[in-house]
Amino acid sequence: MTEAVALSDTRRLRADRARQMADVLRRQVLQGAFPARVLPAEARLVEEFGASRNTVRDALDLLRAEGLVERCPGVGTLVVSEKYAHGLERLLGLAETLHEHGTVSNEVRTTGLITPPREVSARLRTPAGEPVVYVERLRRLNGVPLSLDLTYLVRDLGEALLAEDLANNDVFVLLERLSGQRLGLAEMTLEAVNADPHSAAVLEAPRGAALMMAERLTHLADGRPVDLEYIRFRGDRITMRGTLRRPDPLA
Amino acid sequence: MTEAVALSDTRRLRADRARQMADVLRRQVLQGAFPARVLPAEARLVEEFGASRNTVRDALDLLRAEGLVERCPGVGTLVVSEKYAHGLERLLGLAETLHEHGTVSNEVRTTGLITPPREVSARLRTPAGEPVVYVERLRRLNGVPLSLDLTYLVRDLGEALLAEDLANNDVFVLLERLSGQRLGLAEMTLEAVNADPHSAAVLEAPRGAALMMAERLTHLADGRPVDLEYIRFRGDRITMRGTLRRPDPLA
Repeated sequence: MTEAVALSDTRRLRADRARQMADVLRRQVLQGAFPARVLPAEARLVEEFGASRNTVRDALDLLRAEGLVERCPGVGTLVVSEKYAHGLERLLGLAETLHEHGTVSNEVRTTGLITPPREVSARLRTPAGEPVVYVERLRRLNGVPLSLDLTYLVRDLGEALLAEDLANNDVFVLLERLSGQRLGLAEMTLEAVNADPHSAAVLEAPRGAALMMAERLTHLADGRPVDLEYIRFRGDRITMRGTLRRPDPLA
Repeated sequence: MTEAVALSDTRRLRADRARQMADVLRRQVLQGAFPARVLPAEARLVEEFGASRNTVRDALDLLRAEGLVERCPGVGTLVVSEKYAHGLERLLGLAETLHEHGTVSNEVRTTGLITPPREVSARLRTPAGEPVVYVERLRRLNGVPLSLDLTYLVRDLGEALLAEDLANNDVFVLLERLSGQRLGLAEMTLEAVNADPHSAAVLEAPRGAALMMAERLTHLADGRPVDLEYIRFRGDRITMRGTLRRPDPLA
């Protein structure tokens, strides 16, 4: 084992050192660690990370390329993106999750009764060919696009839901009111995908932007699946946060 | 409320209908729903989704652009990507998670004792300036790159760990053996980010490819944080799966 050294002294590519530094800074940006949203001056970062000035600049360039920070002459490096944390354990709608950050509004792009593909019927446990309600929404926080949600709902609840104010309410809250029971569990699968040109345009994101794609099947408390959603979150606006538990070795 | 209709009959952009169809098919691809990894013929999909042939082709193009499927003349549309599910609840190493799918090997790119930035010391609850062990690994499944992991470990466990076979073992398993106790909880934050050129090259992914980026702080069963990791998963190789629970309204 060698003596403890600053990262700059290891024989590694500058790109590797810049990535390492950018990862630590990214986390600090996301946590709101920098007062007035100004990152420390380059000289401070050189000292703090034991890195060369070139490595510091490369690290800041990585964060800038992600749209997290911007460099302003005479001011320094500013945090310009706001990322919001979505929970990975508690089942909450977007407005419920983000109520401290502002107002969620939903642009309803499509609603209607449709004959779903077999896969959707199977997931919602409805007979093949039985219509379901389809709702497509572009969701914004304080006017800024966050996600594009494609939602399939069982017919009875879905039809009632279409009479409600979808622009200003989470579907979750409406489903609980209409069903007279709480929601229970939801199964979720997350992927990182590049935005296709049309989805990027709808979300006002750059073509190819990284999206957090979620597929989520939500059940009522009694176990009935009622709400199947395909959600594209803008990667530069949303993080997902959760806690993992080490399973029992005998389980 | 209108009569139930096929999706093609709604007055929507073809791009919107193609996205809707692609999302359902993507899920089926990920679930291994298609025998012999061959998607149904276009005519079948036209019928199944009540969509025009052009919409079906657009939907398949979206999946092809994501690298999930390939169209082979005379054969049809083939699933060409294998995506593996990582859990969002159970804290497991990559080899533990993927043992049914093959062998995980780790290319150790860097190891060493470093003086960490203050943020890392704070997360690991070690005194500022106290060295920690840094390990950087490119992780492969059956030879195919899955993730690039930047790992900070508390000194006592980290130094002992460097004497172990890091190429063929999960850090989690080694930490449990060396500490004589189980791991406990880990806090994780996920983001979708575009790969910078150098990270893309290391992961053998296209420039700008969507990555699932995780920051994960792992504790021993006694609560001591010992392992801070920054992980870039290739978006086209990994999904994350979990269950959400509706919180008690009074909680």
